Amino acid sequence: MPVTTGRRADAQRNVAAILDAAAACLVRDPDASVSDIAAAAGVGRVTLYGHFSSRTELVDAVFVRAMTRAHETLDAVDLDGDARQALARLVESSWQVVDESRMLLVAAQRALPPERIRELHESPLRRVRALLERGRADGGFRSDLPADWLVAVFYTVVHGAADELGAGRLAATAAPSAITATLLAAFTPPGERVLADALPLDPS
Amino acid sequence: MPVTTGRRADAQRNVAAILDAAAACLVRDPDASVSDIAAAAGVGRVTLYGHFSSRTELVDAVFVRAMTRAHETLDAVDLDGDARQALARLVESSWQVVDESRMLLVAAQRALPPERIRELHESPLRRVRALLERGRADGGFRSDLPADWLVAVFYTVVHGAADELGAGRLAATAAPSAITATLLAAFTPPGERVLADALPLDPS
Repeated sequence: MPVTTGRRADAQRNVAAILDAAAACLVRDPDASVSDIAAAAGVGRVTLYGHFSSRTELVDAVFVRAMTRAHETLDAVDLDGDARQALARLVESSWQVVDESRMLLVAAQRALPPERIRELHESPLRRVRALLERGRADGGFRSDLPADWLVAVFYTVVHGAADELGAGRLAATAAPSAITATLLAAFTPPGERVLADALPLDPS
Repeated sequence: MPVTTGRRADAQRNVAAILDAAAACLVRDPDASVSDIAAAAGVGRVTLYGHFSSRTELVDAVFVRAMTRAHETLDAVDLDGDARQALARLVESSWQVVDESRMLLVAAQRALPPERIRELHESPLRRVRALLERGRADGGFRSDLPADWLVAVFYTVVHGAADELGAGRLAATAAPSAITATLLAAFTPPGERVLADALPLDPS
């Protein structure tokens, strides 16, 4: 029994080392090979393939772990009070998370189909949906379009900004306010005025 | 000389047949193999590889041809008059094009990096930019955000809608009005009212 436990502990350590190494390698080079990653993790390719049957499976696991951590980070965002101000705070934090793991997102986009990447965003998008529904209920956000669609607009605009940053067409410092200004306008109920301040402060 | 001309004509016919067959196969199955495509084109795999060195190169060529045709279709859209109404017409036609070639887009997304797909949209996006700039000049569209960013928002929202349709979260019939309503709001100058009618008619 102690032998099995020891082996299991070894296996867990190996998996953790491989995921850490993979994340570090993919951030530097989204096309990093399995051999590069195994070397960085200090394990052989056979050991790596014992845990992950393909490069795709490994990239998927790295991305799943990054999304879990992103979800935890976003849990700290205060979503109470005015829904539009809460949206601005959520965009700010979501953008930080996306920006930090942008190269990992590039690696994921090259290895995984778009529908899988979207699927892995389901948990973080649940809080976007809850916030949108609260804003729709109190009239801060539009309710003439399906909530699913507005969630998709949030997702696609934030990821569109990451792609624009990667292409050198958008500055990292300009991104959060551009995303917030765009989404606040996109979610404004028809007939209402678009907020003049992209990131509204608490009224005083 | 007639021999060479004959061979060249044969080669051109083969390329056209391969591209037609590839488009038809990829629309049915975005993962269609080179063997499937060669068989559908009535040529051998060796002949196909003589023209396209990889499946990626073939998918790229099919997508380039589809984008060229899309560009021609969009040339017929009347972009004169009120910029917001012109945007609604452009969304309607752009969506028809994207919807018709949606499975080809899925195939392209699986075979080509996102930055290549965006690059192939440069020509059609030029008319979006021209329209946005006209609307910014006459005050119909916001000018507090970079024009590049607004072009990116158009691109990402239209493609986001295609992904949502593929995921079964958006109905094809609801897509054009949802995209138009979203973009018209997103492009509204801060302080101005979002149009109450998603697809404004000519004022009478």
